[in-house]
Amino acid sequence: METKPITIAGFRFAAVAAGIKHSDSDRFDLGLIVSDVTASAAQVTTTNLVCAAPVTITRERIAGGRCSAVLVNSGNANAYTADKGLRDAESLTRAVSDELGIAPELVVPMSTGVIGNPLPVDRMMRRIPELVRSLRREGLPDVARAMLTTDTKPKTVSLSDEISGSPAHVVGLAKGSGMIAPNMATLLVTILTDVRVDAVFLRKALVEATRKSFNAITIDGDTSTNDTVVVMAGGHAAARELGDSTRDRETFCRLLEGACSDLALQIVRDGEGATKVVTVRVCGARDDHAAAVVARTIAESLLVKTALNGEDPNWGRIVCAAGRAGIAFDPDRVDLFIDDVPIVKAGSLVPSDWESAAHEVMKQAEFSILLDLKNGGGEAAFLTTDLSREYVSINADYRS
Amino acid sequence: METKPITIAGFRFAAVAAGIKHSDSDRFDLGLIVSDVTASAAQVTTTNLVCAAPVTITRERIAGGRCSAVLVNSGNANAYTADKGLRDAESLTRAVSDELGIAPELVVPMSTGVIGNPLPVDRMMRRIPELVRSLRREGLPDVARAMLTTDTKPKTVSLSDEISGSPAHVVGLAKGSGMIAPNMATLLVTILTDVRVDAVFLRKALVEATRKSFNAITIDGDTSTNDTVVVMAGGHAAARELGDSTRDRETFCRLLEGACSDLALQIVRDGEGATKVVTVRVCGARDDHAAAVVARTIAESLLVKTALNGEDPNWGRIVCAAGRAGIAFDPDRVDLFIDDVPIVKAGSLVPSDWESAAHEVMKQAEFSILLDLKNGGGEAAFLTTDLSREYVSINADYRS
Repeated sequence: METKPITIAGFRFAAVAAGIKHSDSDRFDLGLIVSDVTASAAQVTTTNLVCAAPVTITRERIAGGRCSAVLVNSGNANAYTADKGLRDAESLTRAVSDELGIAPELVVPMSTGVIGNPLPVDRMMRRIPELVRSLRREGLPDVARAMLTTDTKPKTVSLSDEISGSPAHVVGLAKGSGMIAPNMATLLVTILTDVRVDAVFLRKALVEATRKSFNAITIDGDTSTNDTVVVMAGGHAAARELGDSTRDRETFCRLLEGACSDLALQIVRDGEGATKVVTVRVCGARDDHAAAVVARTIAESLLVKTALNGEDPNWGRIVCAAGRAGIAFDPDRVDLFIDDVPIVKAGSLVPSDWESAAHEVMKQAEFSILLDLKNGGGEAAFLTTDLSREYVSINADYRS
Repeated sequence: METKPITIAGFRFAAVAAGIKHSDSDRFDLGLIVSDVTASAAQVTTTNLVCAAPVTITRERIAGGRCSAVLVNSGNANAYTADKGLRDAESLTRAVSDELGIAPELVVPMSTGVIGNPLPVDRMMRRIPELVRSLRREGLPDVARAMLTTDTKPKTVSLSDEISGSPAHVVGLAKGSGMIAPNMATLLVTILTDVRVDAVFLRKALVEATRKSFNAITIDGDTSTNDTVVVMAGGHAAARELGDSTRDRETFCRLLEGACSDLALQIVRDGEGATKVVTVRVCGARDDHAAAVVARTIAESLLVKTALNGEDPNWGRIVCAAGRAGIAFDPDRVDLFIDDVPIVKAGSLVPSDWESAAHEVMKQAEFSILLDLKNGGGEAAFLTTDLSREYVSINADYRS
């Protein structure tokens, strides 16, 4: 059964198999997203000191708040490739802008894959004309496939709502399944909307949406050199401008955050070797930041993550991870739940048979951990996965 | 072939199988170390906010700089056991002090194992008289066995040197194989010496020795609730007092640090599921602290640790981990070596065939990574392990 592919008015898509990682591969690995008109745009990129050539260029080019096209490849991160990496990314995006007849600064590159190898520029350049010729409204799923590395499935989202009486749409495509951590890990995301939004508001909305979605997930605690989230607000002919109405702006932010959160969840669900998706909620912290630090420490603890894999309600590991987060709280006051099963109340194990009840909950593919620090009103949630033998297999054998 | 057991003048040892974890087990799980005379003593304990009852008691009792006995158990950490945990540890150490005819404050408890279950105090209390009766000079190996949890082998060390013309000895016993991280992880260590050392200097020497040994190793980044290092300087009748001579003091510090480093290496070698022991050296940092932060971030990266497991010279993961450590440096200037194989020089991959050479080095059980940040004179070293499927198996299945 085929489902209708996701489309969004004002954007076209294409992908080809350029043989970037393996010259004989027929897997899509080079994709292009083009806005019919120059879009307003915003980006959030990696905090890693070592950032890839495409990230440097994307930051510079979107600083002006405008973008027309995204050229994305998998198989090679074009990271730690020095000046040649920058020149390669510039050549490739210039080839796209020449074909499209637009300014070079309106095309941004995104890359993911192995670090430290030069891009096979010649092979890629040869495919650019074909890529541009084959742009089409229904090509989004092809680009979503072209972005994948160790991901087992493409990740797309499509949401809509009404803004000032007109339908408004937000769609997105993402890749990411390992090296996922806050601030943001190997994560490439493009969000597209047919609402016309000014770039300043768009940037503000994206930063906030990213904080609650892509920066609140972890698979292995590593932050990559290439993380990039780009949003392009194109606007087809019939689309309304997002006005100053608070209600409309909130609707738009909710749509954007909804798309980001949906993609973030898909990324965690596709976490390398993951068999569980677990929401770690911390409440009762001094403030939201303190809650986030504790939630992240729990979410990243290898002992917690292996216990999740073993479906073992080893609450001691959870409390122990919280205790080393560097946030003050009184261990003798905390409450701990796994879904709705109380385990610790006011610092003491509950007298009931929590163990078998919690074990039953943990057999599920998705559940939550709630730690109440009883120390204030701050709260935060973090999505994490279990750590499985399969994760190790994927990452021990990935490159060699 | 039997080797002569480690002994140290002035101390006696005993262990029994008290059935702490499994009532029908005949494995040693309760051990006792006793100094013939009241020893001067110092301790370093966990930085986890959630600290176990025995840690609280050990801190208080050794604050006075004196100690006569250590009662150690495995199978149960007596952590997160609230007031009952404190009372249990007090009862047990009091039973020991009653049998020995010494003040209760001279006995300290150490526990390791599962968090959150009360100790089986009755079963343990019944064995105290036998434990004290069976104290003997040659019993150190039995206590080393009684401390183990997921460790595959006991860890002991014996070093000697000459201080003021007399032979001076330092011996030690330790447990630890998972939840090992800086500041110190599930690590129980007792160091014994026959040199007479004042408690103030002993504490200073222990803090410094710990910084360079137990606080510079990582297996999984988790810091436990129970970490404790205790040193007791007993002094048999013929032993010399450690005087004020700088040379003697340096000799003693070298002995103490040597014993700690030897035990730390044994712990990493016995890391859960570890097949490699890797020294991560960072030099050329702004200062030693900056070097230590970068070394630790590399040493704890799951992507680095899985690459070590795969014997894959994935240098990009090493540089990427360094880049997210929060320490400023110029990625375009760094040098990277695996043992003596140069991989990156001044920020560029070397032109030679480093890949097969580095892969050969990584087939070894022990090797080193050296990252030179070219940013100053700071340096640090961290011991780490690879992350294997076996690690996950051990920790997913440990408790349930």
